[in-house]
Amino acid sequence: MRLELENQPGVFASVANLLAKEKANLGAVDIVEATRHKMIRDVTFDIEDEAHGERVLVHLPYLNGVKVISFSDPTFLLHLGGKIHVQNKVPLVTRAQLSMAYTPGVAKVSKAIAKDISKVHTLTIKGNSVAVVTDGSAILGLGNLGPEAALPVMEGKAMLFREFAGIDAWPICLATQDVDQIIDTVKYIAPVFGGINLEDISSPRCFEIEERLRQSLDIPVMHDDQHGTAVVVLAALKNALRIVKKDITKIRIVMSGLGAAGVACARILLAAGVRNLLGCNRQGAVLVVDETSLRAARHDLFLCIKKEGEMTLRESLVGADVLIGVSAGNILTVNDLKKMKKDRVVFAMANPDPEVDPAKASKACRIFATGRSDFPNQINNALAFPGIFRGALNVRVKTINEAMKLAAAEAIAGLIPSDQLNAEYIVPSIFDKRVVATVAKAVERAAYRTGVARRRSLKEGDSGL
Amino acid sequence: MRLELENQPGVFASVANLLAKEKANLGAVDIVEATRHKMIRDVTFDIEDEAHGERVLVHLPYLNGVKVISFSDPTFLLHLGGKIHVQNKVPLVTRAQLSMAYTPGVAKVSKAIAKDISKVHTLTIKGNSVAVVTDGSAILGLGNLGPEAALPVMEGKAMLFREFAGIDAWPICLATQDVDQIIDTVKYIAPVFGGINLEDISSPRCFEIEERLRQSLDIPVMHDDQHGTAVVVLAALKNALRIVKKDITKIRIVMSGLGAAGVACARILLAAGVRNLLGCNRQGAVLVVDETSLRAARHDLFLCIKKEGEMTLRESLVGADVLIGVSAGNILTVNDLKKMKKDRVVFAMANPDPEVDPAKASKACRIFATGRSDFPNQINNALAFPGIFRGALNVRVKTINEAMKLAAAEAIAGLIPSDQLNAEYIVPSIFDKRVVATVAKAVERAAYRTGVARRRSLKEGDSGL
Repeated sequence: MRLELENQPGVFASVANLLAKEKANLGAVDIVEATRHKMIRDVTFDIEDEAHGERVLVHLPYLNGVKVISFSDPTFLLHLGGKIHVQNKVPLVTRAQLSMAYTPGVAKVSKAIAKDISKVHTLTIKGNSVAVVTDGSAILGLGNLGPEAALPVMEGKAMLFREFAGIDAWPICLATQDVDQIIDTVKYIAPVFGGINLEDISSPRCFEIEERLRQSLDIPVMHDDQHGTAVVVLAALKNALRIVKKDITKIRIVMSGLGAAGVACARILLAAGVRNLLGCNRQGAVLVVDETSLRAARHDLFLCIKKEGEMTLRESLVGADVLIGVSAGNILTVNDLKKMKKDRVVFAMANPDPEVDPAKASKACRIFATGRSDFPNQINNALAFPGIFRGALNVRVKTINEAMKLAAAEAIAGLIPSDQLNAEYIVPSIFDKRVVATVAKAVERAAYRTGVARRRSLKEGDSGL
Repeated sequence: MRLELENQPGVFASVANLLAKEKANLGAVDIVEATRHKMIRDVTFDIEDEAHGERVLVHLPYLNGVKVISFSDPTFLLHLGGKIHVQNKVPLVTRAQLSMAYTPGVAKVSKAIAKDISKVHTLTIKGNSVAVVTDGSAILGLGNLGPEAALPVMEGKAMLFREFAGIDAWPICLATQDVDQIIDTVKYIAPVFGGINLEDISSPRCFEIEERLRQSLDIPVMHDDQHGTAVVVLAALKNALRIVKKDITKIRIVMSGLGAAGVACARILLAAGVRNLLGCNRQGAVLVVDETSLRAARHDLFLCIKKEGEMTLRESLVGADVLIGVSAGNILTVNDLKKMKKDRVVFAMANPDPEVDPAKASKACRIFATGRSDFPNQINNALAFPGIFRGALNVRVKTINEAMKLAAAEAIAGLIPSDQLNAEYIVPSIFDKRVVATVAKAVERAAYRTGVARRRSLKEGDSGL
């Protein structure tokens, strides 16, 4: 906070005393301006939460000689002016540089691309760029806040692309929530991008948007809330099953939540061999997937589920081996979990509050995971999407298919060796440097195998010209 | 070029001799790989033009023991992988940083924007970002090459925004040339951007696209081929008239070319006080603007011109004071220029070849300017657009109006003091560091005066929170 203090002994001490009384730890104190009568100081202090900060701010004006000019917190300060920027790869300070990067030199590059359009991948940013596209309809757990409110989240996502995968991602927040308009807009802006990451688009619109864009574009399109989550869930499940020694084709899984993430999890689980899956939507009605109904149309979840309106989520847990929650916070108790089989595996991933109290649930389960960073086993899609897009761009795929996602899950799971694997370490840390390269390599191999790669992966030092 | 050479005395010497014979200056020679029998070398040499380079490459394979593996030129090498990239402003290496820049911390920022949408300008990249939008229909002088071929040019433009104005610009190359679809797409992606720079969109579509976008968006939209050029032409003309001591309201100007740049030049000249303007389109028909027809509808060129189909460009030059060419190369001779009045001012800006041979014309005119960097008086829109957008973003304008463009022209002209002003120095260099700040300041003042600024310009050290 910035304070205007009367330049007298004891004025600053009264501020320090107030902070001490309110248990707010005093940090740096800078002088911004000093006159004979006044001091302007920037004072930093720690707070526990926003309510704590407000208690301090409410009391300050009552101190003699103290005026609050402004205040902020580190999160807002970090966002000031945005979190990403565009930089030039080569300097532009001489006329020679200018005439290579811009007119007249650039004309030659444009003509080369006009003659052979595939050169756009090597001679422009397209080969390394991803659009992070949202319509702001389902921002984090906050709901439909619109494109402007979505922008800080998309910038954050672009930062993850840069930091973890060296990818140039640019946020696209759309001022429309109409499915056709979203699809058209993404199609029209696609020439600049090597991939499209759909983000925070509400269900069920997200399914149609992704599917139609996948069909009409020759670059990979992936709705990360669906497939990023699904890939990491499968990776975590594979390692959990290694610990409890159960066969993926024989377990019974209950899914709580059939939104974007839930449907994609169900799909990848079926593709990975799961045969007994109970899906439960928000209304509590239960949709049953069994071996018989699966056979007909394995590739499409919607075709292989039957509605069984009478069963509740609680009832469906009886005898289940695994619970995967991507629904809402605190909808279950530890007693509910106890209806599950022995060696139960529970991934309670609702944000910010898991489906069941993690402190209690972790003791009642053999393996317990959440989406949170303050508990063991964080199931975070940042383990998947950077490597998936890195691999996809490396070999210039036309699409991201099921084989690539399964390979990514396998690669993530495989990063934990058997001798380190335990109930509190079923997925690697997102800061584990091996993750992106390992996932990318697995995705590249799967792309070759399934015929969607359009070039070989470059070796170190090969420019690709 | 990369060569495979037999590892024997005299083989490299034969390469060096060939280069010498072809007058191609030998540069760096690097060893990439060496075995007992072969050497792989990267050899750099200077060429005059592409034909010269090809002469060298054609002869190389005839030398004994020499094989050309690959070759490239600096322009292509510079474009490899694209010319811009996205960087993070803050590091993302600890969990604390991650949870401020992304979930859960970012939720607080999203909520703040949802509550007060104007905060998107300060808490995201929007406040400093510009979309460089094209449909690839009129790329440089090359014509309609489509969105992919346009991308290196738009990246180059983004580099100019970064280098000259510190603006984060991102290329948007559209896979449609339909006016309605272009307008809709730009409207839908506008939430991320603080301004829209339209670029290389063919005439007359560019007029409607710009006008309709200006009306529907609350951020500035400017077609740079029109207004960037027009502002610099006006600046150059003002200084030219200072030298020849003529009054802008009394001169007769002939415009050759009434495409995007020509129409915008005509408009700004009328707004700046020109009363006698003859415009000539490609077909040679001449459109006359005079004082009487102007009075009715000064703000719109199309309403104030009369078609006089019988007069040719050559005929229209008789008695003219100024010729402004934004048409095609080599359509006039020096003798044509001699029909103009004494102290004639000629801006021949067709690219890459001016309307008249510059070597000859510069001697036949009192003041002669082109768009080229290899002659004095380069009329380059890079003098205008970086400062115009910098000023527009600084005070968060809703639109870029005529007053702001006139102020920008005045500011550019004013950078050359009377004692330095001469026939070969009528506009500052694009590398003159004062240009952007001076133009931005003038644009900000004009924005305030005309009521389109939405905030004051920030002083050094003011965060703007």
